[in-house]
Amino acid sequence: MNDMLISPRPDDARLTHRVEGLDQDGRAIEVAVPVERPLTLYLNGQEVVTMMTIGDYPDYLALGFLLNQNMLRPGDTVTSVDYDPEIETIVVRTAHRTDFEEKLKKKTQTSGCAQGTVFGDLMERFDEIRLPADARLGTAGLTRLLKAINTTPSLYLEAGAIHGCVLAQGDRPLLYMEDVGRHNAVDKIAGYMFRHGIAGADKIFYTTGRLTSEMVVKTVQMGIPILVSRSGFTAWGVELARKAGLTLIGRAKGSRHIVLAGAERLVRDDA
Amino acid sequence: MNDMLISPRPDDARLTHRVEGLDQDGRAIEVAVPVERPLTLYLNGQEVVTMMTIGDYPDYLALGFLLNQNMLRPGDTVTSVDYDPEIETIVVRTAHRTDFEEKLKKKTQTSGCAQGTVFGDLMERFDEIRLPADARLGTAGLTRLLKAINTTPSLYLEAGAIHGCVLAQGDRPLLYMEDVGRHNAVDKIAGYMFRHGIAGADKIFYTTGRLTSEMVVKTVQMGIPILVSRSGFTAWGVELARKAGLTLIGRAKGSRHIVLAGAERLVRDDA
Repeated sequence: MNDMLISPRPDDARLTHRVEGLDQDGRAIEVAVPVERPLTLYLNGQEVVTMMTIGDYPDYLALGFLLNQNMLRPGDTVTSVDYDPEIETIVVRTAHRTDFEEKLKKKTQTSGCAQGTVFGDLMERFDEIRLPADARLGTAGLTRLLKAINTTPSLYLEAGAIHGCVLAQGDRPLLYMEDVGRHNAVDKIAGYMFRHGIAGADKIFYTTGRLTSEMVVKTVQMGIPILVSRSGFTAWGVELARKAGLTLIGRAKGSRHIVLAGAERLVRDDA
Repeated sequence: MNDMLISPRPDDARLTHRVEGLDQDGRAIEVAVPVERPLTLYLNGQEVVTMMTIGDYPDYLALGFLLNQNMLRPGDTVTSVDYDPEIETIVVRTAHRTDFEEKLKKKTQTSGCAQGTVFGDLMERFDEIRLPADARLGTAGLTRLLKAINTTPSLYLEAGAIHGCVLAQGDRPLLYMEDVGRHNAVDKIAGYMFRHGIAGADKIFYTTGRLTSEMVVKTVQMGIPILVSRSGFTAWGVELARKAGLTLIGRAKGSRHIVLAGAERLVRDDA
C-alpha cells in the first residue's frame, strides 16, 4: 500500500472504540471514536508527567517527550525503557543521572510544573541551533506530499478527533503518527528519530495542528528546517520561526498555502 | 450588535498582529495572526504553571484554571488577583491557605507537574457531582444557538488558529471567550462564572475543541449539564460523560449533530 516506516493503523481495534448514539433525526447510529488513556512517565525514578495518549508507541512517546523538553539530551545513553500497560506507566532509565533530575529537585521548591521550569532552558538551547540554510522544497513536491498524506488511510479518516504529524523527505512521507494530543504525535516522531538515528536536516515536518510557539520550538529542537501545517499561525510562532531561520508554511491544502518565515527554502516549480 | 456579557474582540489590536508573507503564487500578502503570550500563575506565593494565552482576561483565566484544577474550591475567599503585564505574572491570594498548597508541597517530592498530581483529586470530586436531570435543550434552539455563535464577529473569523468557548442559556450566547489554548477559553468562562456568581445548572457549554476527557471533566466541574462541540469525541470523553450523566453533543454544524451521552435532555422540536 505504501512504503512508510510507520503509518497509521485505522484497523487496530485497540485504537478506536465503536460507540452507540443518535444522529440529528434521532436515528440510532454507531460511530468510531479514538481511545484516550493516561500514561505516567518516570525518568530514573523521578515522576515527570501524566500524558493523555492513544497508547500506541509509548516508548517513542516517552523518549520524544523527554528530548523535546530538553530533559534528555541527544548525547545521553538510554539503558532501558519499560512500559507497564497494567498500571499505565513508562520508565526511562539512563546510564548517568541526567541534568534534568537535579534541576527538577531544585526547581520544585518554587514551581509545580516541570514543563514550566524547563521553558527557559528550551529557549536557551533554541538560540544555539542553526538550521541548514541549503535545504529546499519545491511547491510541486509540497502539493504531492499533501496529497500523499491526505489519501493515506488513517485514524483521522476513520474516527476524527485526532491529530496527525508526518516526517517527510521531499514529497515522500516516512513516519506518520497520530494521537489525541497533538504534541504526543510530534513527540512520538522525535522518539523514533532518536532511537533509529534519523537526522532532521534533510527532512520536512507536517502537522495538522496550529503553528504555535511550542510547535516551532519542537521542530527546531529536532533540527528540521521546514514546518508545514494545514492550520494557521500564532504571532509568537511566526516570530520564533523567523528568529531560528525555520521555514514556516501554513494553511497548506491542495496547492494553496501561506509562507510566513524562511520563504527562501520554498522553490516555485509548479508553474 | 449583540447582548452578550462578553463577546470576542476582533478589532482589539493587542490580540492580533498583522504579519507579511507570501501566498502559493509568491505574491506578497499580509495576514492577521492571534498573539500568544506566556503568563505565569502564582497561588499565595506558590508558582503553579506557565500558560500560553492570548492575554485578554488574565484574571478570569487565573481563577478559572485554579477552580478547574480543584486548586481553589468554590468556598475559598479570594482576597486579591494581581496581574503584572510587564513580568507576565498573575498572583491569586486567598483569605486562608488552600488545601492545594499543602498537597503541592508534599507531592512535588515525587512529581514534576501540578496538573498530574491533582488528576486523582479531580476524578474523586467528579464522582460526587450530580448534574440536574431536568435540564432540556430543543434541537431547534440548538440550531439557532450554533448560528448565533458562528455569525458573531470573532478572532477566529479574523485570524483563525484560535479556539472558542461559549456559555449559553437556551439559544442565547452569554459569554464567548477565545484563546490560543482551548483549555484557556474554558477556564476564562469558569473564572467569570466564579467572580460573578453565575450558576451552571441551567446553562449549555459550547466549544470548538474536541470532546476529550479533560473537556468533559471541566464541564462537569462547572456544573453544566449539556456540552456541545463542532468537533468529535474521544472514547474516554464519552465514557466519563455517561458516568456523570452529562449530555454530550458532537460534530454539531447547522442542524446536524451526534449525541453520544445523555440524549434524554435533547428534545426534538425542529420537525
